[in-house]
Order: sequence, then structure tokens, then C-alpha cells
Amino acid sequence: MVDIPAVPLTLEGSAVLHQMFRIRRTAWRALDADSKERILEAALLALTRLEHGAKEGHPNQTAFFSQVGHKGDLMVLHFRDTIEDLHRAELAIAQLELSDYLEPTHSYLSAVELGLYESSAKTYGALAEKGLVPYTPEWNAGTAEVIARQSAAMSPRLFPEIPSSQYLCFYPMDRKRGENKNWYEVSMAERQRMMHEHGMIGRRYADCVRQIISGSIGFDDWEWGVDLFADDANVFKKLIYEMRFDEVSAVYALFGSFYIGLRIPAAALQEILVGNLP
Amino acid sequence: MVDIPAVPLTLEGSAVLHQMFRIRRTAWRALDADSKERILEAALLALTRLEHGAKEGHPNQTAFFSQVGHKGDLMVLHFRDTIEDLHRAELAIAQLELSDYLEPTHSYLSAVELGLYESSAKTYGALAEKGLVPYTPEWNAGTAEVIARQSAAMSPRLFPEIPSSQYLCFYPMDRKRGENKNWYEVSMAERQRMMHEHGMIGRRYADCVRQIISGSIGFDDWEWGVDLFADDANVFKKLIYEMRFDEVSAVYALFGSFYIGLRIPAAALQEILVGNLP
Amino acid sequence: MVDIPAVPLTLEGSAVLHQMFRIRRTAWRALDADSKERILEAALLALTRLEHGAKEGHPNQTAFFSQVGHKGDLMVLHFRDTIEDLHRAELAIAQLELSDYLEPTHSYLSAVELGLYESSAKTYGALAEKGLVPYTPEWNAGTAEVIARQSAAMSPRLFPEIPSSQYLCFYPMDRKRGENKNWYEVSMAERQRMMHEHGMIGRRYADCVRQIISGSIGFDDWEWGVDLFADDANVFKKLIYEMRFDEVSAVYALFGSFYIGLRIPAAALQEILVGNLP
Amino acid sequence: MVDIPAVPLTLEGSAVLHQMFRIRRTAWRALDADSKERILEAALLALTRLEHGAKEGHPNQTAFFSQVGHKGDLMVLHFRDTIEDLHRAELAIAQLELSDYLEPTHSYLSAVELGLYESSAKTYGALAEKGLVPYTPEWNAGTAEVIARQSAAMSPRLFPEIPSSQYLCFYPMDRKRGENKNWYEVSMAERQRMMHEHGMIGRRYADCVRQIISGSIGFDDWEWGVDLFADDANVFKKLIYEMRFDEVSAVYALFGSFYIGLRIPAAALQEILVGNLP
Amino acid sequence: MVDIPAVPLTLEGSAVLHQMFRIRRTAWRALDADSKERILEAALLALTRLEHGAKEGHPNQTAFFSQVGHKGDLMVLHFRDTIEDLHRAELAIAQLELSDYLEPTHSYLSAVELGLYESSAKTYGALAEKGLVPYTPEWNAGTAEVIARQSAAMSPRLFPEIPSSQYLCFYPMDRKRGENKNWYEVSMAERQRMMHEHGMIGRRYADCVRQIISGSIGFDDWEWGVDLFADDANVFKKLIYEMRFDEVSAVYALFGSFYIGLRIPAAALQEILVGNLP
Repeated sequence: MVDIPAVPLTLEGSAVLHQMFRIRRTAWRALDADSKERILEAALLALTRLEHGAKEGHPNQTAFFSQVGHKGDLMVLHFRDTIEDLHRAELAIAQLELSDYLEPTHSYLSAVELGLYESSAKTYGALAEKGLVPYTPEWNAGTAEVIARQSAAMSPRLFPEIPSSQYLCFYPMDRKRGENKNWYEVSMAERQRMMHEHGMIGRRYADCVRQIISGSIGFDDWEWGVDLFADDANVFKKLIYEMRFDEVSAVYALFGSFYIGLRIPAAALQEILVGNLP
Repeated sequence: MVDIPAVPLTLEGSAVLHQMFRIRRTAWRALDADSKERILEAALLALTRLEHGAKEGHPNQTAFFSQVGHKGDLMVLHFRDTIEDLHRAELAIAQLELSDYLEPTHSYLSAVELGLYESSAKTYGALAEKGLVPYTPEWNAGTAEVIARQSAAMSPRLFPEIPSSQYLCFYPMDRKRGENKNWYEVSMAERQRMMHEHGMIGRRYADCVRQIISGSIGFDDWEWGVDLFADDANVFKKLIYEMRFDEVSAVYALFGSFYIGLRIPAAALQEILVGNLP
Repeated sequence: MVDIPAVPLTLEGSAVLHQMFRIRRTAWRALDADSKERILEAALLALTRLEHGAKEGHPNQTAFFSQVGHKGDLMVLHFRDTIEDLHRAELAIAQLELSDYLEPTHSYLSAVELGLYESSAKTYGALAEKGLVPYTPEWNAGTAEVIARQSAAMSPRLFPEIPSSQYLCFYPMDRKRGENKNWYEVSMAERQRMMHEHGMIGRRYADCVRQIISGSIGFDDWEWGVDLFADDANVFKKLIYEMRFDEVSAVYALFGSFYIGLRIPAAALQEILVGNLP
Repeated sequence: MVDIPAVPLTLEGSAVLHQMFRIRRTAWRALDADSKERILEAALLALTRLEHGAKEGHPNQTAFFSQVGHKGDLMVLHFRDTIEDLHRAELAIAQLELSDYLEPTHSYLSAVELGLYESSAKTYGALAEKGLVPYTPEWNAGTAEVIARQSAAMSPRLFPEIPSSQYLCFYPMDRKRGENKNWYEVSMAERQRMMHEHGMIGRRYADCVRQIISGSIGFDDWEWGVDLFADDANVFKKLIYEMRFDEVSAVYALFGSFYIGLRIPAAALQEILVGNLP
Repeated sequence: MVDIPAVPLTLEGSAVLHQMFRIRRTAWRALDADSKERILEAALLALTRLEHGAKEGHPNQTAFFSQVGHKGDLMVLHFRDTIEDLHRAELAIAQLELSDYLEPTHSYLSAVELGLYESSAKTYGALAEKGLVPYTPEWNAGTAEVIARQSAAMSPRLFPEIPSSQYLCFYPMDRKRGENKNWYEVSMAERQRMMHEHGMIGRRYADCVRQIISGSIGFDDWEWGVDLFADDANVFKKLIYEMRFDEVSAVYALFGSFYIGLRIPAAALQEILVGNLP
């Protein structure tokens, strides 16, 4: 019998960077009015350009959030076609005089990801029935064809617009690799079943939460990043609490820090610097 | 047989923000008397307004505490109807010139929560007897009705006034998700039993400690926040030590850092800045 | 049969605060002689007053230690009757101009504690024989009587003078709550046996080490604080190493950071600021 | 029967230092043009010299990367024949006036390493057949001969040029030493089998990723460092995700932080300081 | 049968302090030549005196190392007869104006230690055969006699000179106290066997590595400190990797951070401050 890979096929889309900054309000307050005006004018020009970053048919947007709590004051969320583009967006902020008043407190690098558990099972099965051995050129061609087809079909989800909801909840997470409970030792069929049940919960919240999953294995310190967008912040709590009881989360999920922000337009920068929420 | 959800029904109330600040006393000492007066006058006006935040029939208060130890000097505790209101209260402090003398050391975001283990068991049972399948529109209507009724009945506990006790003890906590001992794999009946026993201990302390539980799944880095208010600080130690032996705490509780403060009125700000306790 | 509580009776005494400071020697060196003199004069007056804090028959002392290593330069140890008194002592330092030259690096809040394993077993047994149910008014009266009697008898140990030894070793600790080895699931008889054996080792060192145990559940980030006082620092190492092999430490003890200081009088402050050990 | 060592033979090559710096752009922006020019001129001379470090037939190169995210802005990667040479390269940067504008955020010290699992098995077997006892002079001579021969044959991999790919991914890792799953208790034959399977995955990515493994046991806080070089950053994610399912990674790998950078020539320094990507 | 202690006899020698400093090169570069000369002159006098600290027949030395990587730039290693002497050496540096240019990043306090597993087994056995009960005055006299005799015999190893090798590798370590694998629950005979095997590996490296073990239970945050001295840094990696497979390390060792430095004379201070390696 032909061996079947344990690794599900995965689609990659936008590269994603979360940046968290503390605003140096003491230093900003100390500035004279002319300097503030000069700095803001340059910043608004640059940030507004980043906000509307459409390129090659993909949204390539940047969004701004006023953060709650001490983890930061301003969260910037970039989606770009490549990490190089992402880094250019990051540097476009770093080169502003405004950055003298922004102290980086955290960041997170990832790439929008769709894990194709169901397609993978079908594809691997079909290729195995044809007698193709994994990772031979013929087998690779078969999976590449699936990835290409699905990437095209999923393009709006792989290169998404940033939802316009009032609240953002971001957190990174891992799958547990404990001595006894180890996600990466679970069979693909079992993982597929658990991910399906997990997805069912999300679907019940589909009308009040938009979710974007990005993968960060090889890019940052956790395996995945989760962005939730909603107009009622309590649904973050309800959704994640409910999910905590499904098998894949209860047993295999490890969570990092949680970051909450309220969406603001780049144009509200001046208000945020002094401590007003538009 | 109809499947019954593992997730207890939960009521949400006030959004809660704890802010911890180190006072930059060296910089404050270096200020001339006029500047101190100007800064204090503006601060007192704003902080007093935050203190008495009543809105739409809910207290929406802010309270101030002088913190013991190096984790901070001033703890500010806000209760508001929404996270947006909470963030506006946070920014009302950030925009003060006084904030040049306050360095954020920590914060914690959560929402007052009442977990309805007993009602959930009854409601889920009753709905199951009617043959309703969880998460169908009829079932959702049944639980929504319970939540609405209980929220109205519990309103003073969901949107509480801040107790006026001398001491505050705040700490965050998690339920353990170990490889063998995992709260989220325990049956609801077992969890209900353990939470009931846990509540019995709290009840014995009801005359000397006021407790407010807030949920922070999806909001901050632990699952719950606990605020204890008492006039004799030793009861914090006695209560939590006693609870550590009940099953739900002994086996399933993980604790974060503990923060202890002494209640002060906003009007005492001037004293606290120089290092006096009124 | 009447159920017996798992929680041992506990006596509380002095509230205890450890403060660790880094001395800003660069800034101190940069001061002119007049400023140094002014700052020292005010500081010596205040610190000497804290040192001799006798109040209501209890010592209520503060002691100063020159710390070894990078964790801090000056350790201040306060014993007071209440946390409010402790906080006033803390603020008495914070309000000094001297504090511009002291950077807090750590602190620890606790309360002197005597765990009455042996009395608890006897008392609980005797009350059970009388058929009293735990936490009924009669039972509470019975334990309250024991606590009152023992507190009076143990008063010098509950409100201790600070031993005058040359060296202090302070560390916080927890009892393990692992998935299999969990102190809070061990029967009281077993815990009593282990604590007794543990105490036997301490007794062998009684002539060269003074030990003060304080509880910090609900007050700070570990469950207990341990202060050891000795004139030969090597006995700290010998004692703790030997204890590491007794069952309660080997299996159930978790240790935090260790802090070592050499006792200095408040009057030696000037020497310590420039880097001399009197 | 002769006992066979559990330790595989290992070849060491270049000493490797990763340095991560935050660029103090605020201070740089505040400099006058003349100072910038003076500092850059001296820096470019020194960094270009480090870049092309050929010595005694080995490349001995240094490469520069613009880092994505808050972990640093500039990553410097040095390969040198000895740690002393490496430290001289590190100090050559530290002594530049440019270093006033570079704040070290992290570093990692290691040495290029090739673990000879297959050769070791053969060599240990052959020496055992000759009846040689491990660590006797004859046995040592036998393994020394293998190491010398392989070191010569592998010289280009032991003292590698730095690949010129656009992206670098660096992370440190450990082998797990859990209570039940402990790499160092696994038999050499089993380890050899798992490492072989692990290597097969890497081989499938050979045309799009260059991998350099360095050992850091005794040098830094993890056991190994991994450098991946590629022109398409998504292959880092794909490769490491795929490997996470092979036995040696799923069960025995622990990962540290991940660092991502884009290759820049030393000559691009001026651009990077102001926040441009050439 | 007489019970035998689980605790091996241990000899203590020099108190040891490792200090790690970051050099504030930016501030140093900004100094005028006269100030540099004044500061260096005073520092060299003091540091050279510390370097050659012979007292009461013991070397009592201090050595200086230029550190590789971001953990610090200057490592200072003191051996003294007592912690008080050690603290005086520490303060002798703190009181220098040079210390304005040295930022402490880490330190480690310990005492040279020789664990007498083999002697303990013999001694405990012999005392048991005489029917002596542990910790009785007679038994104590018996072990005290062994300790006194061995301390005299081992004096050069207990109060060692600092080896003059080019490289130093320092790291702290613990013995594991896991739920199943717990060093402190292993019988003394088993521990003695494992420590003996462990020592055999060290012996094979005796001609190229000098090792000094110090105990830090009760003094600092790990149980032991290990200093390795060698002229070829790769032997640190080889030795520690090889040891990782022996039972005591594979199963029971936990390692802290690793610190690598190159030996420099105090006289090289001026060079190190500007970033040269003599």
C-alpha cells in the first residue's frame, strides 16, 4: 500500500505584520505646534498611502487600531503580497519623524493560510489509488494542480480586505506537543475530524465575527496567528470560551498574549497622539 | 438522545480595566510649584469625573488604590458598560499632563461574568426533554430567554458598584489544561459539582470579603480576573489558602501575579504623588 | 462520621515587606557635597526612625542589608502590625529625596505565619468527637479559641524582632501542584508527617540559623517567603541542601529567586551609597 | 561484547555569531549631516572589510540583513575560523562610532556542525569488530582518523560561504529531555533512523533552501542553531511545517524564537539607517 | 538497622562571584581624554589589586574576560575566602568612577564545592557499623573529622587559583525534580554510581579542560555553577555534548544560560573599553 503524507496541503496568501507601539505622549506633548504640524502632515500622507495599498488586484491594506491596556497604544496591521512588501510598509513608518514618538513593544509576522484538511484527504486518496508515490514528480504535479486550483478559487480569502469592524482581537497560538498529547503525532483523519468540529463552532458565529487565520511556523514564535474582527467585543469572549471545550482546543491548543484594539482611520492619528478616541 | 453542550451559559456585565502605574516621583519632585498646581488641578477634575461615572442606570465607576510593593504605585480600576467606554476612560488619563509622571507597569482587561452552571444544567436538560437540538434556532431562543431573564435579575451584580473596602486584592487565573488533568475535558456535571463546593467556601467569607469575578478569555492573557475587597487584608490570605484545598483549585487552578492596593479617593492624588497615605 | 477540614489552622503575625533597590551610584557621584549632605541628613532621620519602630508592644522593626550581586544593592526588610503600617513605612522611604537614587528592582509582601499542623489535628479530632460539624458556629468557636490561645502564646514568634545576624538569605517558595504530585491533594495526616520531618532538620540547625516563615498566598506571587539569618553564610547552603532530600522539599517544593544580603545599620547609608561596606 | 558510545562523531567548522541590533533612528535623525557622513564613512570601510573576510582558504564572511518586526532592525551574521576571530569581528563593530546608533537586542553563538550518524555507526561497529574498547588510545586514533578524513572532505560545508539568497530565517532549537520522551535516552540506531528520515525532507527542498546547522551546546542557551536561506520566504514555512510531522521533530524538537531578515550589502547601510530597503 | 542519610558530605571552599557588565561605550566615547585618563588610572590600580588578591595562603583572585555576544561585554570572576570578602571586591568595583560606564547585566553567587559521594558512602557505612545514629553528637564528630581531613587534603582544589586558559565557559545548572524523574528521590548508591560515570567523562578531558564546580543552593537561582577553562573553545561543546548522553545529565540535568569569555588582564581594560581585544 502507498504511504500517505501526514501533512495537510496548505494555501498561502498575504504576508501579515502586526506592529504594536507605545506612543511617547510625554515627548509629543513637549513639542511645539509647528513641529507637531510638520510631523503630522508627513505622517498622514504616508499612513494614508499605506491604508489604501491596492496592488496587482489584491487589497494590500494597512489598518490602525487604538489599543486597550499597557501592551501598546497603537496597533498597525499590514497585509501585503510578500514579506518584502511588508517590510517596505514597516520601513515606511520607521522612516517617518513620527516614529520618534512611537516605541515598538511587540510585532508578529505571519502569512494568511488555509489548511486544506478535506481536500488533502481526498487528493492523497485519489493519488494513492492511482498508485502514485508521495513526492515523486507525478504526485507533486497532482498536488500542485490542487493547490493552484484552490488558490485561484480562494483568492479573496487568501488576499483579504481588512474587515471594517470596530474591534480587533489578535492572539498567537500553538498546537501542543506534550509527552502524551501531541498534535503532530495524531493521524490526519483524526486531525481532520477535530478541525471540522472546530470549524462548526466558528460557523455559528459567522454573522458577528470575521476570522483570519495566518500561519507563522518559520516566521515568528508561535505556529499560528488569529485575527478576529467584530462590532461587539463580547463575542470574542463567547466564541473563544465555547471553542475551549472542543477537543482540538481543549487538548491541543496553547495560547499566547491577547491584543485588543479599536479601529481608527489613519486620519485620526492626531487625536490618538494626544489621547482622544474619534 | 440529544447531545448537550459542555459550555455553561454565562452572563456578561461591565467591562473592567485594571491599570497599574509607577509614579515618577523623581520627576515630580523636580517640578516647580506652579506646574504641580496646574497639573493637579486638571488631573483632579478629570479623575473625579471618572470616579463618579454613572451612566444609563449603571454605576460605571473608577476607583484608585495606592499599591504595595514594586509592581506599581497607583492602581486604577475602571468599570464601564463597554470596552469603548473603558478605553475612553483610559485615554482620559493618558491625555492628562499628569501622565508624564505615571509609567504604565501592567494592566488587565476583562468583563464581569457570572457562570450559570446550575441554570445551564436545568435549561439544557429542559430543552433536551423538549427534543430541541443545541444551536438550532428554537434551542437558541430557549437559552437566550434564560440569559435575558437572568441578566435582568442579576443586573446589580453584573454592573456592580466598586465596594468601598480599604484593601483590594487582584489576581488573574486559568483553569489547567494539563496532559492528564484538563478542566475543559471534565464533564459539565463534575464541573458544576466542583464549582458548587468552591462557592460554599466563598459564602463562609461573605461577611468580610466582596468578590467580583471577571472573564478575560479573548481579552487578556489569563482566563479570569478575581477582585477581592476587604477591610482586613489577612482574610485574602485565609480565603485563598482555604480554597487552595478544594478540588477545583487544588487540581485545576493556575494563578498569575497578585496585586494589593489600599483604596484612596481621587482627591488624595496630591498626597500619593509625594508619598503620603491619607 | 464527621468530615474534617483539609486546611490546617494558621496563625498570622507581622506583615512583612522586602524591598530591593539598585543604588544609582552614577547619579549620586554626580551630586555636589551640599546636596549629598542635605539628602543624607533627611534620609538618616527617617530611616533610623523606621529601624526602631516599636509600637503597641511589638518590635515593628526595619532592617537594612547590602545585597550581593546584580539583583539589587540595598535590601530593606520591614515588619509591621498591618499592611497599612507596612505601606506607610514603604512610603516613608519613597517620599525621601534619597529615593531619586534608589531604583526598585523587586519586592515581596507576606505575613509571618505559623502553621499549626499538630494542633489542628488534635483540635479537629476533639471537635469531631464532640460531634461538631466543621464551620458551624460551635465548631468555629472551638477553633477560634485555639487560635486565640496559641496566638497569645506564640506572640514573640508572630511579631518577631529582626535577628541581628550578619547574613540574610531570602527566597519565596511554592508547594507543587503537579498533575500527579500535588501537595493540596495530600491528606492532612501525611502533610503533618512530612512537615514534622522537615522541622526536625531545621531544629538541628537551630543554634546557627534563625528562620522566619511568612505566608504570601493572596499577597504576592509565591505561597511562602523564607528568611534565614546566620553569621556563617555557608549554613544557608548546607541547611537548604540537606532539606532538599526530605520528602516535602524533594517532591513538593518549588523555589523562586534567592537574595543574599549583609546586615548594615541605617547609619551606614552614606558608606553604602559610595560603595563601602562598614 | 564491546560497549559502543551513544555519542555520534561530530565535525566542527566555522564559529558563527548572529548579532541583532535595534537602530536608534531617532538619535540618527537628530545628527547633523557632517557627523552622519563621518560616521558612515568609517563604518562602511570597516563593515565592507568584515563582509569579505577570506583567510587561510576559508570564506570567513560577514553578512547583513534588514530584520522584519520588533526583535531588531539589523541582523549581522559572522562566520569565522575561531571564536577569537569572531569576537574580533564583533568588537570591530562595537568600536565604531556607528555603534552609538545600534542597540544590541540579541545574539547567538554557535559553530557549524555536521553530525556523522551514519559514519559513527559504521566506525564504532568496525572498531568494535577489531575488539577495540572505546576511548582507549587505539580506539581514539581510529575515530580521529575518520574525523580528519571527513573534515577534509566536508571542508566547503564546514567553512561555508554565506548563501546570497534574499531571505534568512534563523532559529535555535533543543532536543527534548522530558520525563518520558528524552532524546538523550534513545538508542543511537533509533536516533540515526529518525535523523535520516528528517534529512530526506530537507533533501526535497534542496533546490530552493540552503540550510546551515550549527551546534551551540556549551556556547549558548539552546543546543543548535538553524540558518535557512531562500529567495521565497514561504518555503521556510512549508519546510518547517512539513518537518514538524516527522518523528524527530514532532516528538523531540523544542524551538526558540524565529528571526527573519532580508539580505542587504554593507554598502546599503546608509539607506537602512534612515529606513529604506535598497 | 541504622538509617543512613541521603545527603552526601560536601566540602566548601572559596566563595565565588561572577559579574557580567555591558560597557557603555557610547558614554565612554563621549568623554574627554583627561577624564578617561583619570578614570582609567584609578580603575587600573583597583582592578590590578583585585587580580592579585592572595590572603591567608589562599589565592583569592579576580579574573577578567571579554564576553562574546549581547549578554555582556565584561565578565569579572572573583574567588574569595568569604562572601563578605567577595562583597568587598564587588563594592571595590562599584565605587570606581569606571562603574559609571559598566551596566550590570547578570551575576552569580556560589561557593566552590566538592561532593564526597564515595567518602560519604564509606563514612556513613563505617559509622553505621559502629552503631552510631545519624546526627547524634558521636556521629556528627565522625563526619566532622572526615570533612576536616578531606578539606585539608583538598585545599588547593577548594581554594583554587583561576586557571590561565584563553576561554571561559560558565553556566548554572539544576538537578531535575520532575513528577517521575526526581534526583532527590534517587538512592545515594544510585546517585554515587551516576556521578562516578559522569566523572569518568570529565577525566577523559582532563588534559584540555579545567573544571571548577561551585554550589549555589541558598545563594542563587540554580543549584550549581560550572566553570570550564580551556584554550580550545570547541572542547566545551564536545565535553558537554558527550556528557549529555550520560545518565545523570540526560535524565537529571537542567541547564541555565551559557556565558563565554576570553581572558584578558586588568591591564587591558583601556583596550576593551574602546573595543579592542589585546
